[in-house]
Amino acid sequence: MSANVTTSGNASESTSPVLGTSVPPAAEKSDGFVHIDSDDATWILTSAIFIFTMQSGFSLLESGQVSMKNDVNIIFKNAVDVLFGGLTYWIVGYGMGFGSQPGSNSIVGVGYYFLDASEKDMGFLFSSFFFQLAFATTSATIVSGAMAERATLEAYVVFSLMSAIIYALPSRWLWYKGGWLKQLGALDIAGSAVVHILGGTNGLVATLLMGPRIGVFKPGTKEPKMGYPTNALLGMFMLCWLMRNGKIEVRYTLDGILGSLVSISALCSLARPWESLLIGAVGGYLAILGGELIRRLRIDDPVGVVTVHVVGGVWGMLAVGIFLRPDRVAGLTNHAGNSERYNRGLS
Amino acid sequence: MSANVTTSGNASESTSPVLGTSVPPAAEKSDGFVHIDSDDATWILTSAIFIFTMQSGFSLLESGQVSMKNDVNIIFKNAVDVLFGGLTYWIVGYGMGFGSQPGSNSIVGVGYYFLDASEKDMGFLFSSFFFQLAFATTSATIVSGAMAERATLEAYVVFSLMSAIIYALPSRWLWYKGGWLKQLGALDIAGSAVVHILGGTNGLVATLLMGPRIGVFKPGTKEPKMGYPTNALLGMFMLCWLMRNGKIEVRYTLDGILGSLVSISALCSLARPWESLLIGAVGGYLAILGGELIRRLRIDDPVGVVTVHVVGGVWGMLAVGIFLRPDRVAGLTNHAGNSERYNRGLS
Amino acid sequence: MSANVTTSGNASESTSPVLGTSVPPAAEKSDGFVHIDSDDATWILTSAIFIFTMQSGFSLLESGQVSMKNDVNIIFKNAVDVLFGGLTYWIVGYGMGFGSQPGSNSIVGVGYYFLDASEKDMGFLFSSFFFQLAFATTSATIVSGAMAERATLEAYVVFSLMSAIIYALPSRWLWYKGGWLKQLGALDIAGSAVVHILGGTNGLVATLLMGPRIGVFKPGTKEPKMGYPTNALLGMFMLCWLMRNGKIEVRYTLDGILGSLVSISALCSLARPWESLLIGAVGGYLAILGGELIRRLRIDDPVGVVTVHVVGGVWGMLAVGIFLRPDRVAGLTNHAGNSERYNRGLS
Repeated sequence: MSANVTTSGNASESTSPVLGTSVPPAAEKSDGFVHIDSDDATWILTSAIFIFTMQSGFSLLESGQVSMKNDVNIIFKNAVDVLFGGLTYWIVGYGMGFGSQPGSNSIVGVGYYFLDASEKDMGFLFSSFFFQLAFATTSATIVSGAMAERATLEAYVVFSLMSAIIYALPSRWLWYKGGWLKQLGALDIAGSAVVHILGGTNGLVATLLMGPRIGVFKPGTKEPKMGYPTNALLGMFMLCWLMRNGKIEVRYTLDGILGSLVSISALCSLARPWESLLIGAVGGYLAILGGELIRRLRIDDPVGVVTVHVVGGVWGMLAVGIFLRPDRVAGLTNHAGNSERYNRGLS
Repeated sequence: MSANVTTSGNASESTSPVLGTSVPPAAEKSDGFVHIDSDDATWILTSAIFIFTMQSGFSLLESGQVSMKNDVNIIFKNAVDVLFGGLTYWIVGYGMGFGSQPGSNSIVGVGYYFLDASEKDMGFLFSSFFFQLAFATTSATIVSGAMAERATLEAYVVFSLMSAIIYALPSRWLWYKGGWLKQLGALDIAGSAVVHILGGTNGLVATLLMGPRIGVFKPGTKEPKMGYPTNALLGMFMLCWLMRNGKIEVRYTLDGILGSLVSISALCSLARPWESLLIGAVGGYLAILGGELIRRLRIDDPVGVVTVHVVGGVWGMLAVGIFLRPDRVAGLTNHAGNSERYNRGLS
Repeated sequence: MSANVTTSGNASESTSPVLGTSVPPAAEKSDGFVHIDSDDATWILTSAIFIFTMQSGFSLLESGQVSMKNDVNIIFKNAVDVLFGGLTYWIVGYGMGFGSQPGSNSIVGVGYYFLDASEKDMGFLFSSFFFQLAFATTSATIVSGAMAERATLEAYVVFSLMSAIIYALPSRWLWYKGGWLKQLGALDIAGSAVVHILGGTNGLVATLLMGPRIGVFKPGTKEPKMGYPTNALLGMFMLCWLMRNGKIEVRYTLDGILGSLVSISALCSLARPWESLLIGAVGGYLAILGGELIRRLRIDDPVGVVTVHVVGGVWGMLAVGIFLRPDRVAGLTNHAGNSERYNRGLS
């Protein structure tokens, strides 16, 4: 598809998200328009719809792991993410991430407020916006798991309004041509840092600020039981797509599988199969260990947000440094048609 | 994609459904064949599959809002919609919607009975049929919500057999080249009238004919409680994608979000972002108000079908008249390659 | 799309899976590379993702039909299928199915162990692998239904490791250019034999080896009740896309609809619409009858695996012989660009 991308002026170059396809992140044209063809738009939109289905997966995963009285509550918060997060992302978020108007720099962009587009640009801009919005709301939804059963809805709405703005920063740093981390050579193909480390860190801060749920970690109390483990496992399937004392723990399985998926997201389309197996296995194991550590630190993270997304995500970014080889980068850029500029950023 | 559509003879021109892509609705060739390329077919089929997943969304939404003893019942009815509605749509429905044999007019078509196609045509005809069928069964499924907990299965099978025939009429009026409403200039890109007003109105008629459920609206009785609000909220996610006395009501959220989504469907690919925000906000608010009105009128509509689909749909069609501007229509037709004929219809 | 497939040397020819699109199954090049374009890869990947969503469908279907205490258990087994089955399919399965290194023959292939690919090949090879893996894990998941509530997890892990190897054999026999059944003229477009008869037969063997669940088929005991019929019906929706004594049975509906879907999979893209209706109706009816027979034989198959997949699949393969006509095969090969080789196999 990328072979058909016609760019005038300054070609787009960011290599991003789903399934190794390069998605040009718009914005940096000053003297022309990006003309992606309808195949590119089709693929970007299809991918974005798949990402949005993760809202259903997260809803099941989270509602399945909290006590029954709060299952409606937590799904409700995921609706709030899309609604209110979408609003601020449209008003200022996308521009902070990909704007290139005067005043823009490597940390934050200017422009694209209340995003609209001329007819010529709208095919590209709107599909790019929709795609980025899917990621932005995903990173917000991750946080709702860590805040499970403790935040009031009013507080959560405020968080959702903020979350899309917070997302704009790492998305610029790592996915915008001139982002400062990108220029240092950092590579995050499908959101290991931009989505997962961001969401997990926000979740950690939130749970530390709020403290544990009532009755959790009291001496003599047991861990709260999952309300609907079926939902939780089913949610894991939608998101993606182990043993203690001879007994498989649902929590270990969830943390392990999800942690391994998160950890491969940074290098996904450039890893060789055996590398991804290794990265994923280590990531899954670290996520399980991390979950134990977090429970021992008496941090109340009922859905495993911190260990899955922060531990998995950090390991994923480190794995890029360990496993990425120059010939593979060249391969990426051959396909994406943006080698010199990417390499410029990398070198 | 439309750039690659090769038509011989009389070019197809209807602009329809998903995500602003123009889907030529077949049929009107007398002297040649429509040759869509495989990219068009891919996108039409992908979109149709996404529409069919709304059956799962509706099933969850409806089963979550009826009492627990009837949740199997209502999902069962959605299976009946696809099965029996699909049968009549294949036998006569598609032809009534898009047929152009002698005897066809602006209200109903002739031809395509027991739809089959030569090898040359089948790529286009079968993907178009599958796509239209997805909409036809969706409009039928909407009705099952309004009839919840009151219709016998036998009666529902008869309804399903009819529903695909009923759908054929507005689909012709608004989406077929020579449809009378289309020729008057009406525009309904993704089914605000064809799917939603149709389904909601059928639902209203059905609930009025059947009267309220036993015990509902009796003096001194409360509203029946939702059986599984979790399912209902999850269903809302799959379909898409407020406050009273300081307390958020699940029903208001469902009606509001779904009403706003329905109300943007008519103008979707031509609205500017701020326009869609405004249309959706007004639509959601009207759907909430409409739901209150319907409950006060003692019409028993347990799933909010009438307010979401009729109120949302009518407002959506009105919004086309309010917000559609000539330059945007030109934009549409430029992309779809059918300007003169569309404009002829419009003027 | 196939028009754009550029092959050097020995062109790929297998006609397979989803929605009548021809998916070249890699492998048989010795002197060159397969260059599929990005449209092909997009469609293969999109289709594979849809197939993977059937894991959610099967999870719901199966968890809905077992007793409540085992619903987590059975979803867990579906996770095991993807995890462990994926591992062996990557290590040896894909090579056994599609390898063409020295030593390969019409029954089993050699090569592609620990599948990796050069940059040139990886677009095709990895999307083909991902697509085949989706089928391999589906055939494994079918078995988990037949083993419901009886297998230990350890035994199931061993089964999962084996299942991807077992799948490799029929996939070669029917989908690889030189497969012996293919050369005899057998045609299985979407897996009637490769996926369904395989999975159903494995399930039958498993349930016969294990015997019925405790208390089932004891004199004086009733059939165990489905735990969550809602889930089962919802699962049926995700997988796809009748009366006894005047009462519709959920089990009959599930068996009938799923059996009809399985039975059309072999001939799907070549059947005329009325043929598919007939094949599906007969298949559904046979699956219902088969289910009754299996219960009378006191074979404990709680999810209807054997009747849906074996009875439906066998009838589907027979239907190819009954309904396939030369002109339709020619049509297929015209589209797929592989007529002479396919016909050579057929004659």
